[in-house]
Amino acid sequence: MAARRGRLYALGVGPGDPELLTLKALRLLRAVPVVAYPAPEHGDSFARSIVAAWIEDHQREIAICIPMRPGSPPAEVYDAAAEQLAAELESGCDVALLCQGDPLFYGSFINLFTRLAAHWIEIVPGVSSLTACAAAAAVPLVSRNGTLAVIPATSDEDQIAARLAACDSAAIIKLGRQMVKVQRVLRRLGLLDGAVYVEHATLPTRRVAPLASIEPDQAPYFSMALITMSGRSDGRS
Amino acid sequence: MAARRGRLYALGVGPGDPELLTLKALRLLRAVPVVAYPAPEHGDSFARSIVAAWIEDHQREIAICIPMRPGSPPAEVYDAAAEQLAAELESGCDVALLCQGDPLFYGSFINLFTRLAAHWIEIVPGVSSLTACAAAAAVPLVSRNGTLAVIPATSDEDQIAARLAACDSAAIIKLGRQMVKVQRVLRRLGLLDGAVYVEHATLPTRRVAPLASIEPDQAPYFSMALITMSGRSDGRS
Repeated sequence: MAARRGRLYALGVGPGDPELLTLKALRLLRAVPVVAYPAPEHGDSFARSIVAAWIEDHQREIAICIPMRPGSPPAEVYDAAAEQLAAELESGCDVALLCQGDPLFYGSFINLFTRLAAHWIEIVPGVSSLTACAAAAAVPLVSRNGTLAVIPATSDEDQIAARLAACDSAAIIKLGRQMVKVQRVLRRLGLLDGAVYVEHATLPTRRVAPLASIEPDQAPYFSMALITMSGRSDGRS
Repeated sequence: MAARRGRLYALGVGPGDPELLTLKALRLLRAVPVVAYPAPEHGDSFARSIVAAWIEDHQREIAICIPMRPGSPPAEVYDAAAEQLAAELESGCDVALLCQGDPLFYGSFINLFTRLAAHWIEIVPGVSSLTACAAAAAVPLVSRNGTLAVIPATSDEDQIAARLAACDSAAIIKLGRQMVKVQRVLRRLGLLDGAVYVEHATLPTRRVAPLASIEPDQAPYFSMALITMSGRSDGRS
């Protein structure tokens, strides 16, 4: 008889506040013998920090090293991580893989998922940074018949403008070093004055402010701008 | 001394699976004397059904009647609902307002929020249908530098096409009676064959299938299509 293979649970653990964990993610996290999470080369894993209070001594931990440098990590990083997880699953261990926010919304999990297609995987959705930032800012993301665009700040200036022209509201995410460009394109489009800046939405370091008031070199990677087209300062809509 | 006014907690209770409630929403739900929720004229409140197991006898319940007819409810519906909630808050009662999915992502809460601006409100983000559908279908929503568009199926055909042209992946939501039109525009754009249909993502009635295989009159309101531009059947990308 073939040995039972392990199951991989990709758990969305939410945007940072440990209380934004779901009951389902908590149940599965506590049920598995192995807990895996992405971690930088130096320093702590953000995903692990969110659920640290629930991890128990008898659980084995696997830190998957994902170097945090500008640009995307090379394919070999994900190949190695997927092999590490596959070895656990093949040995029969169930694994909870912690994913900050939601696993399939800009998650590095996506790179592992495509490499682990031969395995049994359950994905548990989590609260994303998108809705967490809207809640922190008390800004409606989108309503009724509106189209919402989620635009990475790494897009080039013309692309950002084209994408803003095709929606009713937008979130420009991962501002970080792209802040000068994002402020410039929004100013050009008459959208800067109505834009709201949110940083670390659910953490004690939370900051909500008019985007126009933020110094360009102050924005961390985990920050976003919320924009509604009806907020144009030039009266167009 | 002025009497203490009540606090309104707008709780995102997730897309349907009771286990996708967050720990924070659960804590606040159990702490308040009054639980309010939107309800149709006839039948049960979907938001209430998600957390029914946690509501206790000593909690007072307020069903806010929101008629479910084509088009948006008239402003008077929300005026009356906001007055009802305001009266509770002014009498000093804390109220948990249950919001299916996330309160600020296409939520009818948005209509109440703008009317209750004078009150103390805390918004607790929830798991949205967007990430829940992606998890159910095991389809990455968006990754790396991609732009995601969320497009209501009520948009007209040219508008849907224009918005799809300005993103890397998309979710067309609230398919319901708009299914014929949505299938037609996706077929025209070479996107139908790659599109995935998801209905009731986290409920026992869940259905995931190729969008092209769905009979147009079968789609309920709570269904969506997930589309990636790299999935074009004509080879464009």
